[in-house]
Amino acid sequence: MKPHCLLNTVVSVAFTAFVLLLGPLQAHAADPLPSWNEGEAKASIIAFVEQVTDTQSAAFVPAAQRIATFDNDGTLWVEQPMYTQLAFALDRVKALAPQRPEWKTQEPFAALLKGDTKGALAGGMEAVAKVLMATHAGMTTDEFDAIVSDWITTARHPVSGRPYTEMVYQPMLEVLDYLRANEFKVFIVSGGGIEFMRPWTEAVYGIPPEQVVGSSIETQFELRDGKGVLVRQPKVGFVDDKEGKPVAINLHIGQRPIAAFGNSDGDLQMLQYTMSGDGARFALYVHHTDAEREWAYDRESHVGKFDKGLDEAKAKGWTVVDMKSDWKTIYPPVK
Amino acid sequence: MKPHCLLNTVVSVAFTAFVLLLGPLQAHAADPLPSWNEGEAKASIIAFVEQVTDTQSAAFVPAAQRIATFDNDGTLWVEQPMYTQLAFALDRVKALAPQRPEWKTQEPFAALLKGDTKGALAGGMEAVAKVLMATHAGMTTDEFDAIVSDWITTARHPVSGRPYTEMVYQPMLEVLDYLRANEFKVFIVSGGGIEFMRPWTEAVYGIPPEQVVGSSIETQFELRDGKGVLVRQPKVGFVDDKEGKPVAINLHIGQRPIAAFGNSDGDLQMLQYTMSGDGARFALYVHHTDAEREWAYDRESHVGKFDKGLDEAKAKGWTVVDMKSDWKTIYPPVK
Repeated sequence: MKPHCLLNTVVSVAFTAFVLLLGPLQAHAADPLPSWNEGEAKASIIAFVEQVTDTQSAAFVPAAQRIATFDNDGTLWVEQPMYTQLAFALDRVKALAPQRPEWKTQEPFAALLKGDTKGALAGGMEAVAKVLMATHAGMTTDEFDAIVSDWITTARHPVSGRPYTEMVYQPMLEVLDYLRANEFKVFIVSGGGIEFMRPWTEAVYGIPPEQVVGSSIETQFELRDGKGVLVRQPKVGFVDDKEGKPVAINLHIGQRPIAAFGNSDGDLQMLQYTMSGDGARFALYVHHTDAEREWAYDRESHVGKFDKGLDEAKAKGWTVVDMKSDWKTIYPPVK
Repeated sequence: MKPHCLLNTVVSVAFTAFVLLLGPLQAHAADPLPSWNEGEAKASIIAFVEQVTDTQSAAFVPAAQRIATFDNDGTLWVEQPMYTQLAFALDRVKALAPQRPEWKTQEPFAALLKGDTKGALAGGMEAVAKVLMATHAGMTTDEFDAIVSDWITTARHPVSGRPYTEMVYQPMLEVLDYLRANEFKVFIVSGGGIEFMRPWTEAVYGIPPEQVVGSSIETQFELRDGKGVLVRQPKVGFVDDKEGKPVAINLHIGQRPIAAFGNSDGDLQMLQYTMSGDGARFALYVHHTDAEREWAYDRESHVGKFDKGLDEAKAKGWTVVDMKSDWKTIYPPVK
């Protein structure tokens, strides 16, 4: 090979290597959070990620320990005017009513079937538990997966008319992508049902079933015609809320997260647990302040009550997202 | 650029690309299971993996669904002359004895401290439970992690004198690697304690904490001096054995595995659950047949009893590894 050809070869190999490296570099160059207005919240996310991924920083965290946990209802998707899973349960009561004639005279089912949701749920947790067990138990896990998968593709949010899977927060989808691009492993840790979420979290959030943690009812293994199935029992297994969240994180993930994202008092212990570890840590609360584009609620709300968490976040300097001013857009564009 | 230089450049770029591609190609060319003798067992593993990764095959399975679960005791590492976790518990009784003077007169501790392990464990499950709770509960999860990490690096197997982390089966380490090279996600699903395994599974098997499923005791979230910790309670949470294994797989992984590996009747339901799904499936039992290099035990054994599982494996044509004839070596070379 002639000298100048050798040079060309070296240059071209170097160029090839450069192109191959460009992907990760570009992730830094472009704005990773385009739906966020410039401000403290956005800056705090970027500063944290840059710090823990910088091998020259004292705060560097190896990729295997970059665990981030996200609440779902009110943090990744809408929880107003009612939790989506409750809307699912109410729809299931209507769908199952023809097979359950006794519901016509049994509360809370009778009120529900007359369209009196408020009256039905006036019975509090006991009424809700009856509705949940009647609609979430008795079938195999495969059957329940099919029921949820079918509902989630057909049901519509009562206010927007959009599928629930489009009532997710575009700025938070960008946070998920940004963290993954920086070798974080992201988990959902939600008070919602683990098997209510898993059928659709991969498609909507890019989060696979094994990275979804939630509340659960007990299941029992059975052989039916020689085939192994799991049957959902009408018995609460685990409530993944408040003190339950760190417990579930330890059980499912086995590592203390270095970043956690929530929106209510139900997430406070998860954020406390996350912030109690050594090294760089990040906690973020989404504060629902936008009555026009979404909902405004906090200390007095029955859904997503945010009171103690708001006080602690302020006291400790955690990031609190002011939805109204921090987010350029709320939902992804209509497809 | 002169034409022949352009050619050189093209060739060199092509070569660079070729080198980059060579890794995955080589994985197919070399023997992925060098510690396995040629035979039905080895051939069945390779045939299954080639089938589910071949996009032209009707049995092709997308990478996201390539879930494989492995029992630990007797499948990935030795379980004779006693479960390693029991050896850990007995060592902890000795270590804690100075702080627990009452143990001198309390069974099963008194017998244990006199060196009469057999007499102490004659009390059956109740005696074992007392020993486990006394040694596994009362501390934070971080403290327990440190205790296990310290023990596992210093303790030695009573027969070989090697660290327990070297009493793992080299042929099975190769199966783990082979599956991962083919984009499987591998999980441990063990009757052993989930927090007894997690401190070392990454280093020994390359399996991160979040892919370890096991038995557990309950934990409780507390704020100690403002720091969030989880305290291990003296109460059994979940027993990950027999019917418990499919339940735990569903809870932690949320997908039915397409391949499962075990060695005892405690794994039978996991294998049944795995084989009950649609499409290509693989079940493997390690049969301990090598009294010379390891141990020979099955239907009558108190540890790793393999009776119903052996019958079902034969009846259904699952792969049964004859350790004596199928494995060239048992343990990794001494370091």
